[in-house]
Amino acid sequence: MAGGGEETTVVVRNKKVVLRRHVTGYPTEEDMEIVADTVRLSVPAGLTAVLVKNLYLSCDPWMRLRMTKHDDGASIPVPATDFVVGEVLVNYGVGKVIDSTYPGFNASDLVWGMSGWEEYTLVTHPESLIKINHPELPLSYYTGVLGMPGHTAYAGFVEVGRPKRGDSVFVSAASGAVGQVVGQLAKIAGCYVAGSAGSDEKVELLKSTFGFDDAFNYKSEKDLAAALQRCLPHGIDIYFDNVGGATLDAALLHMRHGGRVVACGMISQYNLEEPDGLRNLGCIISKAVRVEGFSVRGYLHGYARFEEEMAGYIRERKVAVVEDVVDGIERAPAALIGLFTGRNVGKQLVVLERE
Amino acid sequence: MAGGGEETTVVVRNKKVVLRRHVTGYPTEEDMEIVADTVRLSVPAGLTAVLVKNLYLSCDPWMRLRMTKHDDGASIPVPATDFVVGEVLVNYGVGKVIDSTYPGFNASDLVWGMSGWEEYTLVTHPESLIKINHPELPLSYYTGVLGMPGHTAYAGFVEVGRPKRGDSVFVSAASGAVGQVVGQLAKIAGCYVAGSAGSDEKVELLKSTFGFDDAFNYKSEKDLAAALQRCLPHGIDIYFDNVGGATLDAALLHMRHGGRVVACGMISQYNLEEPDGLRNLGCIISKAVRVEGFSVRGYLHGYARFEEEMAGYIRERKVAVVEDVVDGIERAPAALIGLFTGRNVGKQLVVLERE
Repeated sequence: MAGGGEETTVVVRNKKVVLRRHVTGYPTEEDMEIVADTVRLSVPAGLTAVLVKNLYLSCDPWMRLRMTKHDDGASIPVPATDFVVGEVLVNYGVGKVIDSTYPGFNASDLVWGMSGWEEYTLVTHPESLIKINHPELPLSYYTGVLGMPGHTAYAGFVEVGRPKRGDSVFVSAASGAVGQVVGQLAKIAGCYVAGSAGSDEKVELLKSTFGFDDAFNYKSEKDLAAALQRCLPHGIDIYFDNVGGATLDAALLHMRHGGRVVACGMISQYNLEEPDGLRNLGCIISKAVRVEGFSVRGYLHGYARFEEEMAGYIRERKVAVVEDVVDGIERAPAALIGLFTGRNVGKQLVVLERE
Repeated sequence: MAGGGEETTVVVRNKKVVLRRHVTGYPTEEDMEIVADTVRLSVPAGLTAVLVKNLYLSCDPWMRLRMTKHDDGASIPVPATDFVVGEVLVNYGVGKVIDSTYPGFNASDLVWGMSGWEEYTLVTHPESLIKINHPELPLSYYTGVLGMPGHTAYAGFVEVGRPKRGDSVFVSAASGAVGQVVGQLAKIAGCYVAGSAGSDEKVELLKSTFGFDDAFNYKSEKDLAAALQRCLPHGIDIYFDNVGGATLDAALLHMRHGGRVVACGMISQYNLEEPDGLRNLGCIISKAVRVEGFSVRGYLHGYARFEEEMAGYIRERKVAVVEDVVDGIERAPAALIGLFTGRNVGKQLVVLERE
């Protein structure tokens, strides 16, 4: 039954993570606050919306950009509006529909999309919600390999990177939610692939679990250019950049003629008040390199095809998934912060309730 | 008659510009030397080559890159080998065939292509020479609007920039050999176009002669970002970059979503030992910008079509040409150096002999 029964509606607790203050530099737990609110378990009469019970919250680096108060002169503009102090954080999540007045969505549907960092969210822009077609796979995958990060990896690597069999591919933040998918797609495409990550444990994961041909720990390398030369002696055809900064600068030096830089993320820069200065842009000309930024939001029309293809790879064990799962909304702020020190191993997510 | 008459060959003087030493920082006249050599006015027996009398020498910024001795760690790699100390400088020029053993080329043919900075050049890779199809136009145009710079402007703007009617276009070094053509092609394509240049005289030229909608003198602007905001209030769809450095960094901030940066040249960086650090690369992601380097050498298959189209624009006075011409090979070094201080107004070239 769709919405509206005001008199009989149950009201329940709704814990949420709100922004306590705008952030400068690295975020801390004190920048966020757990607030106990309540929520009515139905869509208010007259409103077209979907009330979702959140099951899994995704922790993604781009949330950091929205935690800063930006003005027009900001040097890293944000692809969305700033979070508002005192209001709930917003990001992708997986949930179950409790009530809906939006056509096509019904109670107990499983969905993923833009939601709040809270137990229940009244989604008033329900066009951003997508129904989950493969509930036989772990639902948490829709925060990662089957959700925004996986689709980002796919759209960026395939559509922007345009791989050819035999290409040499370099991926940074390679064990993260996006990187682990890019590396495995590169192997499926017949490429040679090397990755960088921030610990020896992650480097081992890249080689043993994700099938990277080579990998290095960027924190223990004295010279990133030398590490790239060692792992990719013939240069780079595709650099899938998740980190920006010094790694991007070194990769530019090491690109092959006609190479492509898929500019996906710059996590190394998000906590800096002034971004690093990059000096090797001359290589873009001398090597006829294409550096292309993109957002997965430009490729949403291709999601259904992606979902089927990726679900197939997972079933066939061509794509492995490593998740870093914490339990309970109280632990969400720490999990988010951990992204920026590399504490997480694999896709970071928060489970509120397992289906 | 093709080549070989050794006994009867005339030997004449052949003045040339040779590199005296590799260059660090800004080049000076002392880095080059005028040497009086001699040349036999025929192709030696057994050699497939074309002997060209050079009429016009082109001064192009990229020559500076070849004047430095590079090693593998160079941060601006060069798209060609370094010039050799004691040997003649090499660049595009316009000439007349004196003798040829290369099929299809005959004495008195007018050609342009890679030649030496000297009175006569024995071109031993004659496949780089192109016959001039429009000798009714000023031959010097084949160092500029009908030669490498014009073709660079055309290939870069049309193929890399992919303009749409109504696009907002920004061009740096806009009165130079490439920039003046880009701006006029942008107007022909129905774009709004603004340019930057290094003097008020050049800014006036952009508006009065080349039809730019707006222009600014980058040397007298305190804030490049503010100048861009004033001239292109809706942002930039295509930035045709000839200068790199601070102008590129400011343009990145001012790009529109889905904008294209045509990375053609970085003249502001060529004399620096360490290139400027650019901080606004985050905009590439947040605005889904494509930054693409290219070399006209990747588009040579399209030259004949370009030549016809551009010759038509010139005849129809849709494209104006401003040249900065100096007389005599002795003045070539100073003319080249002048590019890096912006002394030239328009396409810089050296005339050795007028046909």
